[in-house]
Amino acid sequence: MISFRCDYEDGACPEVMEALLRTNGETTPGYGEDAHSAAAAARIRQWADCPEAEVFFTLGGTPTNAMTIAHLLRPYEAAIAAETGHINTHETGAVEATGHKVVTVPSADGKVLPEDVRAACAAHTDHHMVRPALLYLSQPTELGTLYSLEELAALRRVCDEEGLLLYCDGARLASALAARGNDVQVSDLARLCDAFYIGGTKCGALFGEALVFPKPALAQGFAYARKQRGGLLAKGRMLGVQFEALLAPGVYERIGAHENALADRLRQGIAAAGYGFVCQTRTNQLFPVFPDALVERLEADFGFHRWGAAGEGRTAVRLVTSWSTQAADVEAFLRALA
Amino acid sequence: MISFRCDYEDGACPEVMEALLRTNGETTPGYGEDAHSAAAAARIRQWADCPEAEVFFTLGGTPTNAMTIAHLLRPYEAAIAAETGHINTHETGAVEATGHKVVTVPSADGKVLPEDVRAACAAHTDHHMVRPALLYLSQPTELGTLYSLEELAALRRVCDEEGLLLYCDGARLASALAARGNDVQVSDLARLCDAFYIGGTKCGALFGEALVFPKPALAQGFAYARKQRGGLLAKGRMLGVQFEALLAPGVYERIGAHENALADRLRQGIAAAGYGFVCQTRTNQLFPVFPDALVERLEADFGFHRWGAAGEGRTAVRLVTSWSTQAADVEAFLRALA
Amino acid sequence: MISFRCDYEDGACPEVMEALLRTNGETTPGYGEDAHSAAAAARIRQWADCPEAEVFFTLGGTPTNAMTIAHLLRPYEAAIAAETGHINTHETGAVEATGHKVVTVPSADGKVLPEDVRAACAAHTDHHMVRPALLYLSQPTELGTLYSLEELAALRRVCDEEGLLLYCDGARLASALAARGNDVQVSDLARLCDAFYIGGTKCGALFGEALVFPKPALAQGFAYARKQRGGLLAKGRMLGVQFEALLAPGVYERIGAHENALADRLRQGIAAAGYGFVCQTRTNQLFPVFPDALVERLEADFGFHRWGAAGEGRTAVRLVTSWSTQAADVEAFLRALA
Amino acid sequence: MISFRCDYEDGACPEVMEALLRTNGETTPGYGEDAHSAAAAARIRQWADCPEAEVFFTLGGTPTNAMTIAHLLRPYEAAIAAETGHINTHETGAVEATGHKVVTVPSADGKVLPEDVRAACAAHTDHHMVRPALLYLSQPTELGTLYSLEELAALRRVCDEEGLLLYCDGARLASALAARGNDVQVSDLARLCDAFYIGGTKCGALFGEALVFPKPALAQGFAYARKQRGGLLAKGRMLGVQFEALLAPGVYERIGAHENALADRLRQGIAAAGYGFVCQTRTNQLFPVFPDALVERLEADFGFHRWGAAGEGRTAVRLVTSWSTQAADVEAFLRALA
Repeated sequence: MISFRCDYEDGACPEVMEALLRTNGETTPGYGEDAHSAAAAARIRQWADCPEAEVFFTLGGTPTNAMTIAHLLRPYEAAIAAETGHINTHETGAVEATGHKVVTVPSADGKVLPEDVRAACAAHTDHHMVRPALLYLSQPTELGTLYSLEELAALRRVCDEEGLLLYCDGARLASALAARGNDVQVSDLARLCDAFYIGGTKCGALFGEALVFPKPALAQGFAYARKQRGGLLAKGRMLGVQFEALLAPGVYERIGAHENALADRLRQGIAAAGYGFVCQTRTNQLFPVFPDALVERLEADFGFHRWGAAGEGRTAVRLVTSWSTQAADVEAFLRALA
Repeated sequence: MISFRCDYEDGACPEVMEALLRTNGETTPGYGEDAHSAAAAARIRQWADCPEAEVFFTLGGTPTNAMTIAHLLRPYEAAIAAETGHINTHETGAVEATGHKVVTVPSADGKVLPEDVRAACAAHTDHHMVRPALLYLSQPTELGTLYSLEELAALRRVCDEEGLLLYCDGARLASALAARGNDVQVSDLARLCDAFYIGGTKCGALFGEALVFPKPALAQGFAYARKQRGGLLAKGRMLGVQFEALLAPGVYERIGAHENALADRLRQGIAAAGYGFVCQTRTNQLFPVFPDALVERLEADFGFHRWGAAGEGRTAVRLVTSWSTQAADVEAFLRALA
Repeated sequence: MISFRCDYEDGACPEVMEALLRTNGETTPGYGEDAHSAAAAARIRQWADCPEAEVFFTLGGTPTNAMTIAHLLRPYEAAIAAETGHINTHETGAVEATGHKVVTVPSADGKVLPEDVRAACAAHTDHHMVRPALLYLSQPTELGTLYSLEELAALRRVCDEEGLLLYCDGARLASALAARGNDVQVSDLARLCDAFYIGGTKCGALFGEALVFPKPALAQGFAYARKQRGGLLAKGRMLGVQFEALLAPGVYERIGAHENALADRLRQGIAAAGYGFVCQTRTNQLFPVFPDALVERLEADFGFHRWGAAGEGRTAVRLVTSWSTQAADVEAFLRALA
Repeated sequence: MISFRCDYEDGACPEVMEALLRTNGETTPGYGEDAHSAAAAARIRQWADCPEAEVFFTLGGTPTNAMTIAHLLRPYEAAIAAETGHINTHETGAVEATGHKVVTVPSADGKVLPEDVRAACAAHTDHHMVRPALLYLSQPTELGTLYSLEELAALRRVCDEEGLLLYCDGARLASALAARGNDVQVSDLARLCDAFYIGGTKCGALFGEALVFPKPALAQGFAYARKQRGGLLAKGRMLGVQFEALLAPGVYERIGAHENALADRLRQGIAAAGYGFVCQTRTNQLFPVFPDALVERLEADFGFHRWGAAGEGRTAVRLVTSWSTQAADVEAFLRALA
């Protein structure tokens, strides 16, 4: 069955597998204190145009989000997120399990608006309430949408005004960076965010994310936090090796471009067939709305998520492309629509 | 430099790498809901002679210990461990970070004695103190020693008398199972423990552990716990694939036997050279005591951990063999001793 | 200045102070293991028509809510509450600090509707999300409204269908019990809830709440939980003595009736003066809507909370009566309105 | 039965009860934002010779310790305490429930030695272990012993060298201050500690402690922490009123002196009768060692705690005097010894 369920149903992209194989016989210090991890971190610092950044390799989105937020907040402080934000919906309360409330703001398309952040801060007036102290974003969002550089800068200004740290979840950053019209580069994230991560798991790695603290002061003690929260890999070089491969010239870019190109083809075909979308996206996730009967028929041959009811007799579904999606898969889906 | 620092400085054993490569192109459901993970779990249930066991693949020793202990205890309950136990010494307070105290019992050789467990329970008399509710063991222990079946059964009886659950950390279980004179099989762990894990990371995998709950009732809700604590891998089949390979006939056994054979050769050579040990072990860790000057000289050519001062002018060191240690490495070390 | 700010700006009602004075010279066991605490608990069991109930005296609403919810839930389970619920808004994330997410349902008047509870449960489908496992209510609600017996029974049915425990915060229970038309008795709470507390602090005590577990099995280990969470008073009899006095025949009833009578007089006078209310209440809290200029003028002579903007040029305020409010205070306020 | 079980089996000292009665009719802001609380805090700042200190009134020893330690530490940091320290033995893991490990040092008499603190720090070398960041002391200790000013200053120096905060639990501070030969004043605690609390519950109050942060920067956000951890009293002035009364000229001093005088008389009588002590104390706790048969006989007429076996056929017991202990009670006990 052809699957558009998600971007973590396959193995690693060829460059990553090749690097793991090639380096398998090496003996290196454990816990990421190896030359591959150092080289990958150096590459990230250069890419982010942020020579002083601290880089930590971690094991997945949920633990990265929870351990970073717990690291940056005092116990009574809260993270603000879109109600659709991953930390609010699909992490089994991992942030709350570290003791912190997630304060939500409404969102139709996965994005957070400056005025909603201001309102959330204004509603928390004294020590009988949590103190919002961090804004969680994802780029792209859980709905596949993107912040423009102007939007991101506006959110940074709100954070400055309200005393919030800004943290960006880049689980699918490859797709965001390669999106048509995207004007947010990694160096912008480094300039505007207090922490962000560059996704590996959903961008061609076997597993792993690269967490970046552009200001070293905020990283102080994070080595302890990562170990305590279970995020320190014994054979830590596996993460360094994978990110060396992913961030070699052209690889991460190619993965994002491939995903987006196939997603664009899906989008065009679906629109041409007369169907609409929950929201307009330019990344590797799309959320078309189909008649229920069509959804059932498609499910016989294709894997995808039902996203939710979308009016009488219609269902929104999520389609995701990955580094390994084939053009033929896309064409088969579009043919099945007809 | 030849390293005896630990058993996680190398890549994966050949069978694991081959399996990862071979399956890399497959598309399977994420989060461990794939056929490889199912097959590996089935293999473990059979090996453990425990058809009803629930098996969860996890990402490393520290998170596995913390999430299992937090899952099994109520908030005011504590785990008992040897003062040398990994959860007490080298996990950055991960268990406490989930809210639970670790109550320690003295230990000279890494092992826990029934009478010390009884005394720890007797010292906790009412609700002004934590309630000890779980005994943490490791097989082999952090000092490389082993429980005999009789010792393990005696600890199980204490647990039954005192109302404790029994949990065994098997980070280096391959070495334990293959040790001369070992009479504790995986099926014994399944029969005597409420939970235990079969180590992957230190036994030839890239990463990963296999957590076993022999009684399914105790596993209830653990899928939530694993996700919340950051232990659910998106590309979860990577764990299933690795454990399929590790637990194919003869592989895990061969890895343990190889490690132990080289450790035995080291032990014999060191003893023959006239040096003693912190404690007698039969597994892949050994703790010889050398004159300080010799330690310094050895450090020029070999990697190992200084374990601690061991009397005037002498230092205990830790040597560990792994699946990839070569007989020539051992001979080089022994020559350097001379 | 005459204050309608809240019901905890005064001392204790005369019966409570008298009892504290009368018993001050006694020597009794600490930690609530005294005869006064036993007698007060017995009185509550009788009142609740629940001879097997377990009663624990605690120190305030926020810690009682947090420690009870943390006691009743497993780590990945969540409490459902109205978005206006005290645990969601005014407890500085105390529930989240114990590791649990609060899942909110919309509420215009402080009350929770069965269909919203069902929808919240339905939205949490698997282990990637928290598991809703407890419904938090308050009687009266934070907006002064009341559940009828029929409404409470309907919520109990939803809880049974969805596998939720039902917990009721009775911080102002005296006012609820004495309200016109109230048909929910303490015995109904005991029959329908898995835990509830009878408010002391806001009902005439110096401090203290009486937490009731109608089913003893759910209280198992709570003595540990209360101590661990800081809720065990060394001179614990102070709580028993106060509740003996508060629950002596007629006292709690009189306090509630007094508060409600003065609140009713306020309501009538405000309505007669032509002003409306945020919602209709029958308890000791009322939320009239006044022109901004009037609010400012009233603030010169009266204490009350601004509740929020209520349309162009108007502000909702909260008025609360207490055991010590005088009829003359009410009349003064009504005169000031004119 | 005459009780020497503890110093929290009675009501409040007369001055406290009188003040509560006298002020009962007042209407003041809640949550400790009242004039009595302000006056009591001012008195403490003056007493401590620390005009800039921040003072917070709290509800008991266990929650004060846990919330202060949690406030001062980052998640992976640990508190060092004597193995006999209250936070390690009798708080049901309250500190661990906030996520922090308690690292213990040996202690025969309840006191912590500088060299043991240094050794504990030296044993924690990197991010695989918790980072000790706070030293917990109690003055007097749980065994009734006292630090001299010189000893306290030496511990402060160790804290400075090792990067530790210093926190002192003063649950029984009245007795410490009034002890023969004591040279540690409240102003010394303010000068040497980063936080300490002045005990109320065990020193004549109904309940309540006064937590002092000599350096305001360390108190930042503590108002949130106190509310979140359940330590903010709605009728907060009850704490201010009590501390105003306790700290009126001569009261706290008289309570300590009274307790100590009766404890001295007990000590002398017991020694004269030929019995020894677990350790030498000058405060209101003493730990005599009696033959088992005598212990049993005394238990018929007197309340006290068995502290533990003390050699063949002998038991150590704990005797505590309080503000309400009578000279006649002491004489009765000594007669019973004869």
